[in-house]
Amino acid sequence: MLTLPKGGLALAALDEQLLLPGTKGLPITEPLRQGALGVQGWNVLRADTSFPVAVLKTSALQHNLAWMRDFCARHGALLAPHGKTTMCPQLFGAQLANGAWGMTLASAAQVQVAHRFGVRRVLLANQLVARADIHSMLHLLHDDPDFELYALADSVAGVERLSQAASGLARPLPLLVEMGIPGKRAGCRSIDDAMAVARAIFDAPGLALAGIEGYEGLLVSHDRAADVVAVAAFVAQLVALARRADAEGLFGCAEVLLSAGGSAYFDLVARGLGGVDGLSRPVKAILRSGCYLTSDHGSYHRLLAELDAREQRPGGLRPALEVWSMVQSRPEPTLAILSMGKRDASYDIDLPIPLAAQRPGASGPVALPDGCSIVKMNDQHAYLQLPAGHPVCGALAVGDLVGCGISHPCTTFDKWPLLLAVDDDYHVRYGVNTFF
Amino acid sequence: MLTLPKGGLALAALDEQLLLPGTKGLPITEPLRQGALGVQGWNVLRADTSFPVAVLKTSALQHNLAWMRDFCARHGALLAPHGKTTMCPQLFGAQLANGAWGMTLASAAQVQVAHRFGVRRVLLANQLVARADIHSMLHLLHDDPDFELYALADSVAGVERLSQAASGLARPLPLLVEMGIPGKRAGCRSIDDAMAVARAIFDAPGLALAGIEGYEGLLVSHDRAADVVAVAAFVAQLVALARRADAEGLFGCAEVLLSAGGSAYFDLVARGLGGVDGLSRPVKAILRSGCYLTSDHGSYHRLLAELDAREQRPGGLRPALEVWSMVQSRPEPTLAILSMGKRDASYDIDLPIPLAAQRPGASGPVALPDGCSIVKMNDQHAYLQLPAGHPVCGALAVGDLVGCGISHPCTTFDKWPLLLAVDDDYHVRYGVNTFF
Repeated sequence: MLTLPKGGLALAALDEQLLLPGTKGLPITEPLRQGALGVQGWNVLRADTSFPVAVLKTSALQHNLAWMRDFCARHGALLAPHGKTTMCPQLFGAQLANGAWGMTLASAAQVQVAHRFGVRRVLLANQLVARADIHSMLHLLHDDPDFELYALADSVAGVERLSQAASGLARPLPLLVEMGIPGKRAGCRSIDDAMAVARAIFDAPGLALAGIEGYEGLLVSHDRAADVVAVAAFVAQLVALARRADAEGLFGCAEVLLSAGGSAYFDLVARGLGGVDGLSRPVKAILRSGCYLTSDHGSYHRLLAELDAREQRPGGLRPALEVWSMVQSRPEPTLAILSMGKRDASYDIDLPIPLAAQRPGASGPVALPDGCSIVKMNDQHAYLQLPAGHPVCGALAVGDLVGCGISHPCTTFDKWPLLLAVDDDYHVRYGVNTFF
Repeated sequence: MLTLPKGGLALAALDEQLLLPGTKGLPITEPLRQGALGVQGWNVLRADTSFPVAVLKTSALQHNLAWMRDFCARHGALLAPHGKTTMCPQLFGAQLANGAWGMTLASAAQVQVAHRFGVRRVLLANQLVARADIHSMLHLLHDDPDFELYALADSVAGVERLSQAASGLARPLPLLVEMGIPGKRAGCRSIDDAMAVARAIFDAPGLALAGIEGYEGLLVSHDRAADVVAVAAFVAQLVALARRADAEGLFGCAEVLLSAGGSAYFDLVARGLGGVDGLSRPVKAILRSGCYLTSDHGSYHRLLAELDAREQRPGGLRPALEVWSMVQSRPEPTLAILSMGKRDASYDIDLPIPLAAQRPGASGPVALPDGCSIVKMNDQHAYLQLPAGHPVCGALAVGDLVGCGISHPCTTFDKWPLLLAVDDDYHVRYGVNTFF
């Protein structure tokens, strides 16, 4: 049996791999070493690549990494960005290099991927229940004594499953009790229920209570004012639970971790968790936003504009992720069919947002007007509806490029094994990989 | 520069690859040779795998392969199944071994993947427009003189783009004119427009008119009776176009290909195209259904039941694809949170359909009642709503398994790099790979 080097294969090894013809977005007919992507001289706007192609704008990524580092410093919070958004080891590396405390992940399989690429501290934001998943996580902890893993628990039954397996661990597995919201996802529905779980962890051999966790993102609704009140109340409940658990002496680690924070209301979480004191041991407030890294042109763009307003700091996170496709057919005056579909861009919250058109080789790109929208997607096609009488739209022809923003980065990343990082002129600089 | 062996890497090479920890569904902590999957003794219902896990039922696959072979023989049609559904070389191989004439694919990148795994005849069911994609396809034809590729054209502009690149080909590139439907996707909107495209192909050096193509699947609506009429009319239009092009002497290959047929109305297409004669050369009717191979428990299940009724042959295609996940949290009496989400199962037509529950190790599985349904999915979670007062649902506990059928196979396959093939008792027999 082969074994992998401890601490993970170096990220750099990804650049040694051969990309094969058939990799979406690549204009290759022979295998190409990934590290050579940046010296091919490809430019997306010249249509040097294959289409569709997913691009990450490096300037926006750099801006967002710095923005979030500053945000956390200002609020006295730490960041464990949710890695499920991108599942991209190179981006994990950039997040950790920009001060992230660790990575958050959603499943045991995702933790295995992150560990393989050298991530050393993970918050697994779910209760471990499957026997295979419990086994694989305990195997990592046993095999790599410096790897730090935190997981969640929201039921006494869940604690018992884990405790049976963890009882032989040399170091206890640190758990955060998950506080939930009635009618929503996982998590305890009352502080009393959560205290019962905390006590079960305290009593369980092989486990230790490390903190309290919740996900306020489930409260996002169409009534922002109500959301803000509800999120503040939920965050206060997390703090109240932490105080009760501390008063009973249930915490078993050197610090108490308080964690919440999706990508919509992490400012409210930072304000609510950032200054908690008076517990028997130091408190760390840990945010878990995943989508801050790329933001988007849709749902998060709207939510983050409101966050900027609450923070009274305009000029916040920038959209970094676009999908470019080609006009494949121009069958009617107000209809263009694009060479991308459900396999290429998010469609779960909004359909992609057309931003600009480019005739390869011409100057450009040219902004598309608001009335120009994608009204439907099939697996491999998008229907771009064009307003009648608009000169740019009317001139759109077979072979022209259309750049789209997306709404909800998570469901675009999972459609691309390889994304191309581009500069502001859309020169291809390097490639990054996802592992879904 | 490395070169790949001509004719494709053997499919068997996939079984030589090492699967790494972190591959969704696999309960491994060390790399495992894919060919060894079947001797691990894993059973999904015993929760030996990781969850979620996507399974293919081998008995249903075998049934469906044979069913479609018989259907085509009965109707005098050939099959070029749409490979975009699965993008799975092992399943391509099974389809070709069961008499498929070739594979249909949606993009140049998909053609490259299929060619790499030994597919020798492809109908690329789109117009080639991107320079890189035209180049990669012409490179295949030049580099592999026995590889057969057909593509579509729906505009004179598209023909001109292709003709410039193809003029140096040793053998002409065979094209089918795509007939479309007003208000729908690509394709010519009238027979006159289509004739203009056919004449452009005839006139273009390096191109040859090989046939007529359309996609009647765009006509699926909520009014089945109207659909049946509209599909028959559309198919008749394809035939009329073929007769006109033939009368003008525009066809340039030994045979005339007539192709249509998604997975909803391929019986109507087979009846309309199956017996066409009286042209100047032999006619081949080519169906392109992709979803017949796995069918599903949702949208296609309903459509195919109607097809069975039209054919007056009950007992048709069987659902072969399921996603099993685990109850991760049981926070309220009528709510279970499952460990699968938008990353794991289709959500574009219907949410997954809960079929059965299984307590690992207990006898079972136990069917779930109709009132039990998935009402929402996040990226990594599903919300299973349980009817109050039902004994099976009430007993569902953290750690129990729930098996779900899906609706629309295409958008489940693209979420799984590896699917596990299981027998009727859910013993894992082998793995198959997808390349999206």
